[in-house]
Parts: sequence; structure tokens; C-alpha cells
Amino acid sequence: MPSGYKVAVVGVTSAAGSEMVKILEERDFPVKELAPLASKHSIGEFIEFKGDSIPVQVINERSFKGADIGFFFAGKAMSKEFAPIAVRNGCVVIDSTSAFGGEEDVPLVVPEVNPHRIKGHKGIIANPSCSTIQLAVVLNPIHKQAKIRRIVVSTYQAVSGTGKKAMDELTEQVRDLFNFREPKIKVYPHQIAFNAIPHIDEFVENAYTAEEMKIVHETRKILEDDSIRICATTVRVPVFYGHSEAVNIETEKKLSPDAVREILVNAPGVIVEDDPWHNKYPLAIYAAARDECFVGRIRKDISVDNGIVMWIVSDNIRKGAALNAVQIAELL
Amino acid sequence: MPSGYKVAVVGVTSAAGSEMVKILEERDFPVKELAPLASKHSIGEFIEFKGDSIPVQVINERSFKGADIGFFFAGKAMSKEFAPIAVRNGCVVIDSTSAFGGEEDVPLVVPEVNPHRIKGHKGIIANPSCSTIQLAVVLNPIHKQAKIRRIVVSTYQAVSGTGKKAMDELTEQVRDLFNFREPKIKVYPHQIAFNAIPHIDEFVENAYTAEEMKIVHETRKILEDDSIRICATTVRVPVFYGHSEAVNIETEKKLSPDAVREILVNAPGVIVEDDPWHNKYPLAIYAAARDECFVGRIRKDISVDNGIVMWIVSDNIRKGAALNAVQIAELL
Repeated sequence: MPSGYKVAVVGVTSAAGSEMVKILEERDFPVKELAPLASKHSIGEFIEFKGDSIPVQVINERSFKGADIGFFFAGKAMSKEFAPIAVRNGCVVIDSTSAFGGEEDVPLVVPEVNPHRIKGHKGIIANPSCSTIQLAVVLNPIHKQAKIRRIVVSTYQAVSGTGKKAMDELTEQVRDLFNFREPKIKVYPHQIAFNAIPHIDEFVENAYTAEEMKIVHETRKILEDDSIRICATTVRVPVFYGHSEAVNIETEKKLSPDAVREILVNAPGVIVEDDPWHNKYPLAIYAAARDECFVGRIRKDISVDNGIVMWIVSDNIRKGAALNAVQIAELL
Repeated sequence: MPSGYKVAVVGVTSAAGSEMVKILEERDFPVKELAPLASKHSIGEFIEFKGDSIPVQVINERSFKGADIGFFFAGKAMSKEFAPIAVRNGCVVIDSTSAFGGEEDVPLVVPEVNPHRIKGHKGIIANPSCSTIQLAVVLNPIHKQAKIRRIVVSTYQAVSGTGKKAMDELTEQVRDLFNFREPKIKVYPHQIAFNAIPHIDEFVENAYTAEEMKIVHETRKILEDDSIRICATTVRVPVFYGHSEAVNIETEKKLSPDAVREILVNAPGVIVEDDPWHNKYPLAIYAAARDECFVGRIRKDISVDNGIVMWIVSDNIRKGAALNAVQIAELL
């Protein structure tokens, strides 16, 4: 029997789940046995892994027998139900849904930012949401140098963040519109093709969306500073892969754009692409399938003292979900 | 001969120019004679106006003989060359390019906001850029009540703002990508289909784009308050019609979201669409072909005292260009 871990991937047929299988293979993660798990809707599907074709198994209480690591991508309800069962089987859960990220004793980890948090885990480690991860990777090194006091972020989020059905919906709506047919609306509350929808996840009491408040809470938790004041507007745009973010920050210590660039050039997991006069700035289509977070358009925020504006882009499925989860497992 | 004005439309074959002809007809603007002008590239084209098919004329020094009003939509260079000639012919120029908006003695007018500015004109009145108009229409009534100190705006701008060629480019790129062909890139520096490009107009010395700095200067000029501090990030998204804007403001006087809604419900040219729990907020696809500026997602900016966030959408070709120009002419 090969040495390594028994790895369960829950929601293996989702966009992030299938990316996860790809990344496990690419990074040669020591997998002794792969358990591709999903709900009964995926019966009959197969997963390709290292030359093998493995049938997807319907998740149940016995799925985690002998499992060492479980990656969860199948939605909050599935995580709430099966993560505790996995933990009872001695399996460490790396959960990419938002089921546990808010809990005090569940570490929320971005390996480039707070790897030390992993140590204290009690069986479950939470993977932050995609829009938070790229923000934290880029802002953490700045925060360490100059103490960020306030963040205003407006996002341009890809449909793959919602999943495969949303990617199909965008594709089909575009086809329908180009063929003079009424586009069908199923996944999103409105047509996403050729539109921008300021509505991701549900609305909560304060008229923000859950996604917006997740950025607030997760960023504070990961940067380990509850005094940072954060305001987010999260918007879905007709992009398949790659979340973009327009980010205004205010720091305690004044930093020039050059100083920020220097900090970021040396930051782990960050690539600075910032030569606008030669049309160089991060773009969703180029960030897709890349591991790093890209940052550019770094300039002084001319509306405030000690302000910096920038444009942050990352592959929301890779770094935003699957890759970050694998990096957490590698740290373990 | 019917009574009314001789109206010249320069750049009549452009997206905004052809919308202008439509609006002149819709609003029954008193046109005695229409002179549809364009560069020699449009030779042989016709314009439909009130049941007539009028050949497009190539613009020259004699085009403005007897003209009363000239609407200019054909780019900065064309305006710089022909607007002074039009003025010498006694024609009032309403210029929608950015050729004159920055000049001290050229009024920059949004009829809902600063109609009184028209009086002082010396032959040329500037139509602000589309991204400024919708911002000014919505923010002016708030500024009057509570004095806006700072504005942070991130835009989601439609390709029609660039013109017909850009709309064709988006269409063709989508078709190419859906047919596994390499998309052609001509109008924009990068693929716009399924992407978000943080680059509108040229970059200027401070690493902002001219479009971003136009929002700063034009908004201050229109709201008649140079002390407002403004920061913009302007982004092109794969949307055909309708600019969206995520806007964070800070005011001197504290306003609740409800107070802001009440101000805006009573503001000219503004429609409040703000019931997020029922999926109601402004959207580009619904704002298209409408005259008003739409605002929603009005909430407290939880990252600052006296802060409000909102989402502003308007048809960039209609209110953002042609309609605003006609409204200026109506005031004249």
C-alpha cells in the first residue's frame, strides 16, 4: 500500500471540488486513497485522478472511516451535517463553506498570513471565502508595516464562485441573448449576462449581504485585528474565473505607493503587476489558473491622508478555494 | 417652413449621436432642420428622423451656416476643430466630448443640478462625462442637505460608453470564445469579454486614468464645491448599456440611510429602487433606455462615522450623454 493519507473530497463534482482533485495531483500531495464524495445527485459520475477513474461515492455516515483529511466544498448544510462525523472518525476537516468560519475555536487560515493559527485546531479548520483570501494575502504585509485602519472594497466577482450551475447559466444566457431568445434565470435573482448584480449571498439585517459581512469578519479575524473598520460592496459580474477588487485603504503610518509596491513585491503569494502606461495591471482572465494574488494600479488615494488605492485579482476557485485548502493541509 | 431650430448633430453615426436623433424625435424637440454630420467614414449612411431618411453629411467649415444648436459627440479632436467654427456661425455648441469641460468659462451642466450655470455661456456648454452625470444627479441633493466631504467611487462601466465599435468588439469576442476561436482585440487594450478592465481613457501622471480624474474635477465643478475630496477607480465590464457605481460618501452632517432615501425619493431625475430583501436594487439591464438615475443598496457605511454607501446606475448613453445634452438645449 502506498504511504500517504486517505483524503476525502466532499462536493467533488463542484467547481472547487474538481479543481481540488486537479491540485492534489499537480502538487503531488501524498494521497494514499482518494474518496470522492458528493450528494446522490452525482451518482454515476467519475473523477479522474492520477490516471485512475474513480466513481463518485454518495456521502454517508461511514464515508470518513480511516480518512485523515476531509476537504469540504458542498455547502453549509452538508458541512454542518458531516464535518462533525468526520472529526469523530479522527479526520481533520478543512471546510471551504462558511459553516464554521465565524466560530471562536475554529481557525480561519490563509497560509501566507496566519499559518500559526492551525496549531490550535480542534478537528476543523476553516478556509475563508474567496473574496477575503485575496484581500488578506495582499493587505496583511501592508498591515504589518503601517497598520491598516480602514478598508473600503468593491468587488467584481466571477460566476464560478457560485459553482458550475452559475457558469452554465452565464453561458446559456449569452447564447439565448445572441439568438434573440429570452434568457432563463435560475441561479441568480436576475440576468447575469451583460449585467452587474450587487447581490452575493443573502441580505442580512443591516442591509449588507452575508458575503459583504463575511469580508468584514473574516478579514479582521485573519489579520488578527478587530479594530480595522471595513466596508464592502460585493457585486457579481459576467466573468467566468477571477475575482477583482477595487480596494481603498487608510493606514496609521503614511506609506507612499512606491513603499507599498516594495512591501508587496516581497510578500509571499503576491505578484505585483503595475505598469499602467504599458497596459499592465491585474486582470481576471490572466489570473485564472494561477496560484498567486495579483495587485496593481497602486496609487495614492487622493481623497484622504494616508490613503492607498489598488486593484487586486485572483483565481477565486484556485487560490480562492481549492489551493488555499491544500496549502492548509500541507501545513498540517 | 416649420418653426423651430436648425440642429446639427456631429458624430451622428456614433452610439450617442444616433441615440440623440431618437431623443430629439421622442421629446418632440422643435427641429426645423436636422443636419446629421460625421466624418468622411460615414459617407453613404442615412439617418431616420420623423419618417424622413436624411443622408449623413461630411462635416466641413460650412456645415454650421444657419445652425442654432450643435450637439457634438465625435471625439475631442473634432470638437476642438469645429466647435469654434460653429460658435462663429452663431450656433450654440453642446459638447459631449471632454474637449472643453475643464475650461473656466465653459459651463459644465447637469440640468437637475446646476441649470443656472447655462446663463453665463459664451457659445459652448459642456456635457459632463457619463460616469459623472449619474453621480452628480444622485449626490447633489445629499450634498445640499448634509455637505459631502469625501466620495470613493468604483465603477462598472458599459462598453457603449466607448462607442459602437466597442459594442461590436464585445459581441465578436463572445462569439469567438464560444466557437473556440482566439478573440480579436482592437478597441480595448485587453479582452473585454468575461473580464473586468481597470483602465478607461489614458493614464495621467498620478497613475489615475483621465476618466477617474474627470470624475474628480467634473463632480466638484458641477456640485460647485472644490473642497469635496474624491477618489475614483473606473473599470470597464462586459455590459452593453448602463454604468453602475459603488459609491461611499462621508458627510459633514450625519444622515441615516432612511434620511438619504427620503432626500432621494424627492430628488429630480432620481428613482430609488431599494428593497434588497425582495431582490430590488438598480441594475444596468433595467436602467437601459430609461431617462432617470437609479439608486439603491443605500446603507450605513459601517467603516466610518457619517458614512453612507449606495449603488447608482444609469443608462450611460441616454442620461449619460444624449438626453443630458437635449435637456441642456431645452433649458436654452
